[in-house]
Amino acid sequence: MRLVMIGLGRMGGNMARRLMKAGHEIVAYDRDAGAVQKLADDGAIAASSLEEAREKAGSPAIWWVMLPHGAITDGMIDQIAAGANAGDIVIDGGNSFYKDDIRRAKALSEKGVHYVDVGTSGGVWGLERGYCMMIGGPDQVVRDLDPIFSALAPGMGTIPRTKGRLKDEVDDRAEHGYIHAGPAGAGHFVKMIHNGIEYGLMQAYAEGFDVLKGKASEKLPEDQRYDLNLADIAEVWRRGSVISSWLLDLTADALAEDGRLEKFSGNVADSGEGQWTIEAAMEEAVPVNVLTTALFARYRSRVEHTFGEKVLSAMRFGFGGHVEMPQ
Amino acid sequence: MRLVMIGLGRMGGNMARRLMKAGHEIVAYDRDAGAVQKLADDGAIAASSLEEAREKAGSPAIWWVMLPHGAITDGMIDQIAAGANAGDIVIDGGNSFYKDDIRRAKALSEKGVHYVDVGTSGGVWGLERGYCMMIGGPDQVVRDLDPIFSALAPGMGTIPRTKGRLKDEVDDRAEHGYIHAGPAGAGHFVKMIHNGIEYGLMQAYAEGFDVLKGKASEKLPEDQRYDLNLADIAEVWRRGSVISSWLLDLTADALAEDGRLEKFSGNVADSGEGQWTIEAAMEEAVPVNVLTTALFARYRSRVEHTFGEKVLSAMRFGFGGHVEMPQ
Amino acid sequence: MRLVMIGLGRMGGNMARRLMKAGHEIVAYDRDAGAVQKLADDGAIAASSLEEAREKAGSPAIWWVMLPHGAITDGMIDQIAAGANAGDIVIDGGNSFYKDDIRRAKALSEKGVHYVDVGTSGGVWGLERGYCMMIGGPDQVVRDLDPIFSALAPGMGTIPRTKGRLKDEVDDRAEHGYIHAGPAGAGHFVKMIHNGIEYGLMQAYAEGFDVLKGKASEKLPEDQRYDLNLADIAEVWRRGSVISSWLLDLTADALAEDGRLEKFSGNVADSGEGQWTIEAAMEEAVPVNVLTTALFARYRSRVEHTFGEKVLSAMRFGFGGHVEMPQ
Amino acid sequence: MRLVMIGLGRMGGNMARRLMKAGHEIVAYDRDAGAVQKLADDGAIAASSLEEAREKAGSPAIWWVMLPHGAITDGMIDQIAAGANAGDIVIDGGNSFYKDDIRRAKALSEKGVHYVDVGTSGGVWGLERGYCMMIGGPDQVVRDLDPIFSALAPGMGTIPRTKGRLKDEVDDRAEHGYIHAGPAGAGHFVKMIHNGIEYGLMQAYAEGFDVLKGKASEKLPEDQRYDLNLADIAEVWRRGSVISSWLLDLTADALAEDGRLEKFSGNVADSGEGQWTIEAAMEEAVPVNVLTTALFARYRSRVEHTFGEKVLSAMRFGFGGHVEMPQ
Repeated sequence: MRLVMIGLGRMGGNMARRLMKAGHEIVAYDRDAGAVQKLADDGAIAASSLEEAREKAGSPAIWWVMLPHGAITDGMIDQIAAGANAGDIVIDGGNSFYKDDIRRAKALSEKGVHYVDVGTSGGVWGLERGYCMMIGGPDQVVRDLDPIFSALAPGMGTIPRTKGRLKDEVDDRAEHGYIHAGPAGAGHFVKMIHNGIEYGLMQAYAEGFDVLKGKASEKLPEDQRYDLNLADIAEVWRRGSVISSWLLDLTADALAEDGRLEKFSGNVADSGEGQWTIEAAMEEAVPVNVLTTALFARYRSRVEHTFGEKVLSAMRFGFGGHVEMPQ
Repeated sequence: MRLVMIGLGRMGGNMARRLMKAGHEIVAYDRDAGAVQKLADDGAIAASSLEEAREKAGSPAIWWVMLPHGAITDGMIDQIAAGANAGDIVIDGGNSFYKDDIRRAKALSEKGVHYVDVGTSGGVWGLERGYCMMIGGPDQVVRDLDPIFSALAPGMGTIPRTKGRLKDEVDDRAEHGYIHAGPAGAGHFVKMIHNGIEYGLMQAYAEGFDVLKGKASEKLPEDQRYDLNLADIAEVWRRGSVISSWLLDLTADALAEDGRLEKFSGNVADSGEGQWTIEAAMEEAVPVNVLTTALFARYRSRVEHTFGEKVLSAMRFGFGGHVEMPQ
Repeated sequence: MRLVMIGLGRMGGNMARRLMKAGHEIVAYDRDAGAVQKLADDGAIAASSLEEAREKAGSPAIWWVMLPHGAITDGMIDQIAAGANAGDIVIDGGNSFYKDDIRRAKALSEKGVHYVDVGTSGGVWGLERGYCMMIGGPDQVVRDLDPIFSALAPGMGTIPRTKGRLKDEVDDRAEHGYIHAGPAGAGHFVKMIHNGIEYGLMQAYAEGFDVLKGKASEKLPEDQRYDLNLADIAEVWRRGSVISSWLLDLTADALAEDGRLEKFSGNVADSGEGQWTIEAAMEEAVPVNVLTTALFARYRSRVEHTFGEKVLSAMRFGFGGHVEMPQ
Repeated sequence: MRLVMIGLGRMGGNMARRLMKAGHEIVAYDRDAGAVQKLADDGAIAASSLEEAREKAGSPAIWWVMLPHGAITDGMIDQIAAGANAGDIVIDGGNSFYKDDIRRAKALSEKGVHYVDVGTSGGVWGLERGYCMMIGGPDQVVRDLDPIFSALAPGMGTIPRTKGRLKDEVDDRAEHGYIHAGPAGAGHFVKMIHNGIEYGLMQAYAEGFDVLKGKASEKLPEDQRYDLNLADIAEVWRRGSVISSWLLDLTADALAEDGRLEKFSGNVADSGEGQWTIEAAMEEAVPVNVLTTALFARYRSRVEHTFGEKVLSAMRFGFGGHVEMPQ
């Protein structure tokens, strides 16, 4: 199939490459002409403007937008829509908020343009491993795009099959690494929750390693102190333990390089999905204590002190004349 | 009654003064001779050694120990016990762990010595207002000491009576600001939970004021920013709102002095009771999310970064090449 | 002053009564004619329709809307606005979301109509004690309405003054129980945070009493069990302790009636403000662990089991063949 | 090597079998004679009493104790110690608290008996996959036991090597699935933290799936509802996503069988390690919000309502006359 890829950053560029390897044709456009040229060198059809991309897109045009979520993606989709024909397909492969998907799908459908949202996990590893995809959109459109999705997906590889799936009539796309989750927004919704979980998992490991490291503290009684080798511990947990995971693999890798992680200061960013997950949970009245506390740990990591901590100090001073801990 | 006060710091000294005002006789001992002299100036019987205190104690001797919990209190009680006679009473008015009380009561009872534990709230304000006390020990001994407790307690004052208590046959000690909570350790146990709650309450206010202050942040859309007067807010909440409290009074006072609390850095100490409260809850399998998170906020306030945060940074670098937030 | 009160429920009705006591004239309207009649019996000018209310309102008309937040309040304000004249004032005294206030103020200002938002705390106690109010709106309009606000407010009463306020040139409205917090929405924003804090405070007490009650559990070693009198404990903490508060007063009252609280099942509702507080905190990247966990405890209280708990059971079964705990 | 296995439950029995497969000799003892007979059928040397086990143990005797932690393990180790000779080795392969290990190692060393603690992960899957082991004890003794540990361990298998380990001189035992973590107790300490992390990971998944499931709720606006296929979602996340893990494999399996998990009620037990992890963290003043909240979610899952929830209801009734949510 022929597909226009808009946004040739690390994600978009590599996805285009993986698609071309599978025999698809890519019309490549990015406001950075160098990125377009680089992909053209790898076999893509270069477009130096959106207009040119449109001309080369074929009919129906299939647009894969891979841009930062929010205003930038919205703006691009508006531009595409302005010149789109009925039957064209716009795919948002970025990290959009699912309610934006619902809104856009409704707006585009008035012109007969289809909208598909694709949440993608796999990060920089995707070119090689394939991309795990969660897809939202109209059933038939998603089916029609199957050659694209199956090319991007990791496939079954060496990952063992889930026992319970052997006996049932189940959608085998999931086993190949992509699902059609539901109507517009469902793909990004599932991806959003994925990221919420990711924050929780990361924080669980982070806290555990923190306690391991703290066990060498001189504040502890001498016979209860251990100077533990965190790299070895991360490694052994990868091998047969209940908590083995890909995130642990990454941790083991980082600790093998430097068991004290001294090149990292610990100012931890968050993308929007963690926050959106909490908002979704609150709309459903579902308690998500771990996901929330994981997000808040990141907030806290980015300031020297919260104002709240000063309030605590002030109260303590007020009722007991307590002066603060020395820093 | 005559009572030996051991430990003449801010708490012990003021309690002795309040007792003397009520007509009790205080034998005063502290390893700091200056503190003893100061209390003697206020009318106490000075003792320059534990031995001298014992001689002046009368019979049965009543010892009120007001020292830092742990080894220091344990050591003093051992010394007192070594020369004690059957019928003597040892009162621990500090912040001991209730399981230490249980252990000590058992040990002392073998000599016929009574042990009473008293958890005290009221801090530096107690001399004037009276001390709220939670008492553990044998029923008759606590009854016999009533003149002491009623003198230390705040009494009913101007605080309105609880409606539900008007009609019942209830222990009126609670209305006067002291209770006999149960056998050995029960006083300190109730005081420990009191402190656990205190941490939770403080953290709730702290977080709320943090959000109020953050509402001026330039990251917010301009028409959604408020530059709020925190001192006025604290003040208005003291007056008729559902969240009025003594802790809020203290906060209002601090904010009235400086709405930015700039003299406080925000390194917040914790005494042992918060931690013990969590341990007690876990022994009972009672979820105490707020009390725990309040304690952990203090831990976090005392370090620049946790190691866990570095682990998070390292993972993020591993899966996406994400570099950290600038500090 | 003359003021139209729309919505004569427990809050609106009592506020109207407090205003009339202070000499203000109330035009009373509610879709429930009985409620209108009852207030007319107490001296209000009855209006049987919005139209009639408008006629009796005087000029400029001052409308105090006291209705459930969301669509109902929005609809009423739209109706009022449709017939409003420049200079009229619309006051939303309910629990609106502050972003709705910002939106409405902008819309009304196009017609020259002023909008004022008032967050109110004090609940059913307000008629007698006065209402603690947090006000948002244009400075001059709020000043003009001062006779209304000062009549509703509790005044200084017997609550001691905050030391830090004695020496400064400060806005004395706060000491009388109401503040002008800022422009449109600021009143409801401050009230929203107030409620967020309230949830946190309540949960802190709830957890503490839970641990106290659990201390009688037969799972604990016999010499570490206490059968504590929760009513007495709540009472004693009201008297001189650091955690005294109005919420504790209410708790003491409930426990004095029944120390086991058997008439309550423990399904705890939340109004929107707790959730909005978390959202506001996330917009500011402020960690609010206690406020969030307090809200989530309410969500959890309202279901028999979360689906998440079943997921946990399923995992445990998967890796260890663990069967569940008997209920 | 010859080794006495005490406790032939699912774990002990299978470990013995895996050792025999590797050529080791097992003297098998359990108070359940049937379990002994079953293992003898598989090639073990049966012992019908501890005395007989001692006779058949050889010299030095190596004892692997695989019993429930606490009094039962303590009692067995005391019995073994009573008849032990210098140079004998006692291995506790259960889930003991690491401070118990420290105490026991000290006591046994006075008789010249060595003590080794082994924390094991892998559950019912270990016989086939091998056991991931974390070992504490004297360096030389752990080295001497290497044939045992290497036989029990999973070995490198097909799990990819950690990049950072390729270049360094590192202890290659970690890559084979076992580590010598440190002196007495270090093995169980690391295993304890492992379990603490496990709780956190499980809870993160649980909350995420809870939000996914809740997205079908009829309380949500109709165009924001998704009826998601949880089994497919779990499956797709196993394949290339950042949150793939063994725990997710188990979840996928359970959901493939029944996407509603109806055979599970959701009463979730906890073994001691979660609680001990929190205690260890508090001793180090390390904030572990996620690990704690995960443990508390289990506590909460096991009761219909907490008493704290009734306190909340009582307060709400007190300040606003709010009646409870219908269940």
